[in-house]
Amino acid sequence: MNTDHGRSEEAAIRSVIDSWTSAVRRRDIEGILNNHSPDVVMFDVPPPFQSRGIDAYRKTWAMFLSWLSDPVQFDVIDMDVTAGNDIAFAVAAMRCAGPGADGKIAALDFRLTVGLRKIEGQWTIVHEHHSVPAGD
Amino acid sequence: MNTDHGRSEEAAIRSVIDSWTSAVRRRDIEGILNNHSPDVVMFDVPPPFQSRGIDAYRKTWAMFLSWLSDPVQFDVIDMDVTAGNDIAFAVAAMRCAGPGADGKIAALDFRLTVGLRKIEGQWTIVHEHHSVPAGD
Repeated sequence: MNTDHGRSEEAAIRSVIDSWTSAVRRRDIEGILNNHSPDVVMFDVPPPFQSRGIDAYRKTWAMFLSWLSDPVQFDVIDMDVTAGNDIAFAVAAMRCAGPGADGKIAALDFRLTVGLRKIEGQWTIVHEHHSVPAGD
Repeated sequence: MNTDHGRSEEAAIRSVIDSWTSAVRRRDIEGILNNHSPDVVMFDVPPPFQSRGIDAYRKTWAMFLSWLSDPVQFDVIDMDVTAGNDIAFAVAAMRCAGPGADGKIAALDFRLTVGLRKIEGQWTIVHEHHSVPAGD
């Protein structure tokens, strides 16, 4: 792999993920879905176990956006991107905020893995895995 | 990407993951670590939030192997592999079994995402993300 090429792919992927987190902060559902495959497979923090396809993915956001407190926090704390010519994945520590069991707004740190495929020249999200450690 | 080439890469990656799950079932810690990068980043089901590096990864297995009941169940229920020439990821539904809070042995289904990089011709695991939905 050409290293300069790898760096430009990494920059393109960071741009896709920046666009996605910005759309979450604007509560812009169409923006959130903008770079996703119709066949996206989502492993989310709350149940269900998995959500397959863009319609199921969209539903996970309706619930999550209703939980997030304003102004919306949904930030990449730290992210590694591993990119080839047409397949890539990103591994991140993320932070959002919303009401806890006691009703008080608190930060929630979560782990995120994103799988991407370049489709017709565009990096496209085909998988997301969001989680918190069990028992946290 | 040549499709036949993609299929052979997918087969090689499935073989790496089969070898890893087989090693877990044998409780063979060296076998579990056999195809992992020294820099592997692990997001595990229980805390901590993340484990960085092969020594920290090894420690997560000491705890998990002590929980698994005999005969060890650690199986791929369903797995999609997305492979390029040198970067790939796998998305799976998994099943293991051990004692629950009530002490009774029960199956535990979990989600798994694996990130791989081909290093010196060998598919190498650089990231694992294991989780259950929060509140499950």
